[in-house]
Amino acid sequence: MSHVYDRVALIGLGLIASSMFWAIKRAGLAGEVTGYARSEATRETARRIGLCDRVCDSASEAAEGADLVVLCVPVGAMGAVAEEIAPVLKPGATVSDVGSVKRHVIDAVAPHIPEGVHFVPAHPLAGTEHSGPESGFAELFDNRWTLLVPVDGTPPEPVAQLRALWEGMGANVEEMDAEHHDLVLAVTSHTPHLIAYTMVGVADDLRRVTDSEVIKYSAAGFRDFTRIAASDPTMWRDVFLTNKDATLEILGRFTEELFALQRAIRTGDGAHLHDYFTHTRAIRRGIIEAGQDTDAPDFGRAKVKA
Amino acid sequence: MSHVYDRVALIGLGLIASSMFWAIKRAGLAGEVTGYARSEATRETARRIGLCDRVCDSASEAAEGADLVVLCVPVGAMGAVAEEIAPVLKPGATVSDVGSVKRHVIDAVAPHIPEGVHFVPAHPLAGTEHSGPESGFAELFDNRWTLLVPVDGTPPEPVAQLRALWEGMGANVEEMDAEHHDLVLAVTSHTPHLIAYTMVGVADDLRRVTDSEVIKYSAAGFRDFTRIAASDPTMWRDVFLTNKDATLEILGRFTEELFALQRAIRTGDGAHLHDYFTHTRAIRRGIIEAGQDTDAPDFGRAKVKA
Repeated sequence: MSHVYDRVALIGLGLIASSMFWAIKRAGLAGEVTGYARSEATRETARRIGLCDRVCDSASEAAEGADLVVLCVPVGAMGAVAEEIAPVLKPGATVSDVGSVKRHVIDAVAPHIPEGVHFVPAHPLAGTEHSGPESGFAELFDNRWTLLVPVDGTPPEPVAQLRALWEGMGANVEEMDAEHHDLVLAVTSHTPHLIAYTMVGVADDLRRVTDSEVIKYSAAGFRDFTRIAASDPTMWRDVFLTNKDATLEILGRFTEELFALQRAIRTGDGAHLHDYFTHTRAIRRGIIEAGQDTDAPDFGRAKVKA
Repeated sequence: MSHVYDRVALIGLGLIASSMFWAIKRAGLAGEVTGYARSEATRETARRIGLCDRVCDSASEAAEGADLVVLCVPVGAMGAVAEEIAPVLKPGATVSDVGSVKRHVIDAVAPHIPEGVHFVPAHPLAGTEHSGPESGFAELFDNRWTLLVPVDGTPPEPVAQLRALWEGMGANVEEMDAEHHDLVLAVTSHTPHLIAYTMVGVADDLRRVTDSEVIKYSAAGFRDFTRIAASDPTMWRDVFLTNKDATLEILGRFTEELFALQRAIRTGDGAHLHDYFTHTRAIRRGIIEAGQDTDAPDFGRAKVKA
């Protein structure tokens, strides 16, 4: 494939940025990829494993002359990074990000974007429980969705160019506005993460059931929660603080439903429980048909070693 | 391997019984395995796919002369089945079950067990989101735990024999008492299932986020909940109705923790959130080290087809 951008700069070198680098290289989507991470240890690791064509010692150095600058830092740090790199941004360049929350990122970043530079927020819906520069791999975005959330007044060309990059990295791309994005993600990602964190916290907190029992018997259902609850703490703290309204709203709905089921258990209302559990089964079938999961029995268990 | 039992009867032919049959055959653990299912369609399917050496048209016919009878029906149906087969049970035979709740099963089944027949309740901690006679496979129990919950006064021999069967089917075996079993399972399995069902129900119920959006973007975290929430509705209804006290207790703890995190979000207490999320990460590491999951990135995603 011919280059989509001559030079791409990745600011922040965690799971997403490192996967972007390997996916860009896999498809030859950029001439040069520069990178910067705040921690010197991360920069050293990146240099050692060949992550980025050039690892820079400041965000400005990495961003200078880049045709695309992607902010891959926690949502709470986006504004400060945008302010720092603003003076070196090339006219006609595009700034994007990979944050899980969009309204807050737009409010924090857009004021720093100079005239003549485009800002096209994005959010790849892909991840694993691992984080850091060594956790990335080229296939992370394959057949996953990336949502573009262009701000008002953005011309179509920079949006189309960013779409081409994400499609070149294997993703399916869709556009939506920031408010709808934040609500959809509160339902499909943010609230599920908070609930998983809570359940794992409860299990760890109980003294009558030992930690080793929880761990040994996790395959009975708990295991799937721990996978979610092992995600990066800083990233998730920022998500909840910056998508507060939508998360609290969905949490309120969740609590309401949970209390209704709890009441059905307490009163022995088996019909209510059976109806509810039958209904939720159909949604799973839709996810398998949409290609976002496999129906292989117990999902990957063959890989588990004794 | 030489036979552990001459004849085994499986009453109920769903995921667990069909997996037991294939695992017994894989290791040659029994001379003959008979089977019975209440639904004629299930019995026909079993005959067609060669599930059981002999499929019988009544539970009594299947159980008659068996050295081990395993009740593989929903927890709420165990008592009636035990009553039905009691008259044909062979002296010296063992009756067992695979129910997810133990105190209730013991109370429902034990009164029907004749003098001279042993009752050794058991619970294999293994399953998939699929159910029915065609969902079983020989590897289901490999490296998974099966808990034996012997009742007072049971001699050691029938317990040891049942242990040998489960170990022959690939499981790790441990013994515990019924009350502790029901609490451990409320933490590791029952409450997580209820929460997953609730979250999936909430997502499906929201009208501002469409079903197709929930399904398309499920890889962002929600997907893991739907896998759990696709389990058999009848089985889970019975679990919650019969392990009511422990489930309600753990749910109470869960709600307490959730409200504390919700408050931290509302007040912007980032330190509380970060500490909590850091703590839950460690438990995940323990589960991987205990061999109950793999740390492969995004767990099996390579199998997903577009």
